[in-house]
Amino acid sequence: MSLQDIKNSIRNVPDFPKQGIQFKDITTAIKQPKILKETLEMMAEHYKNQQIDYVVGVESRGFIFGAALAYMLGCGFIPVRKKGKLPAEVLSQEYSLEYGTDKIEIHKDALNKGDKVLMVDDLLATGGTTQATVELIKKTSADIIGFAFMIELDDLNGRAILNKTAEVFSLIHY
Amino acid sequence: MSLQDIKNSIRNVPDFPKQGIQFKDITTAIKQPKILKETLEMMAEHYKNQQIDYVVGVESRGFIFGAALAYMLGCGFIPVRKKGKLPAEVLSQEYSLEYGTDKIEIHKDALNKGDKVLMVDDLLATGGTTQATVELIKKTSADIIGFAFMIELDDLNGRAILNKTAEVFSLIHY
Repeated sequence: MSLQDIKNSIRNVPDFPKQGIQFKDITTAIKQPKILKETLEMMAEHYKNQQIDYVVGVESRGFIFGAALAYMLGCGFIPVRKKGKLPAEVLSQEYSLEYGTDKIEIHKDALNKGDKVLMVDDLLATGGTTQATVELIKKTSADIIGFAFMIELDDLNGRAILNKTAEVFSLIHY
Repeated sequence: MSLQDIKNSIRNVPDFPKQGIQFKDITTAIKQPKILKETLEMMAEHYKNQQIDYVVGVESRGFIFGAALAYMLGCGFIPVRKKGKLPAEVLSQEYSLEYGTDKIEIHKDALNKGDKVLMVDDLLATGGTTQATVELIKKTSADIIGFAFMIELDDLNGRAILNKTAEVFSLIHY
């Protein structure tokens, strides 16, 4: 199993969600037991010597790798969700979409000052949602110690902004 | 670590998402490393001697336990998503909400005849969404071999309909 095997398992879907976008479909990767296992273990390996208290994953695809990695690293898992989904008191962060804005939320009591947080998602594109999550987590005074992605779209240079906060690690690059 | 410890870690949020509902909030459970670990391992233990090809999880909370269990059981993970989210060709299933209907989708090529599928979600209430997923999976001719939940709300008797398809296993009962 090599990184190229993992890359080969990702399906390219042209023109999704709109004309001109080459969508990287991970469903063909994670349905293969060996690919799912190797992807998760390579991601976990990168963090094995770091102290991490919590993995944070953003709804919905960030839950897929996030919760599994939390288990593998012996951490807790904390979900960041779209507005109105979390039941208790929340902190919110607005972010820009192509047209208009949206909000992400985290439970107000989810993180405390000094907690060490690893953010996990499937794909890094422009980094807009991830940076909004950074702003959200900063409101809790927790420390972000890293960003882990299965896939990074290098040309969109999302890591330029995230790098200012913590190290960015991606398994597969396009 | 006992089942009672796990149950104690779940937060009850009254009147969410609306008046009169006692919402079972798992975020206070899964943020605790030991609770996350024990919950997943107890669920995995129940299936260790069964042949399972794929774990299916429904967006969004079904991704949390679903992907981790797929890894632990050595299976692939297949997401069922809300309409319009999956990039390739899909099968759809409509289901009823309190007002109107919604649709869930699975990739048309995700499952084949005879594939053995375990469905995983965080909570079983009336079983409406899970039964819609059963109908969706039946369109693929795959075999559902079980349903796994962290929490079951016994009074709503969702298992009555799911039991007709396969065994229902829940860790925590209310």
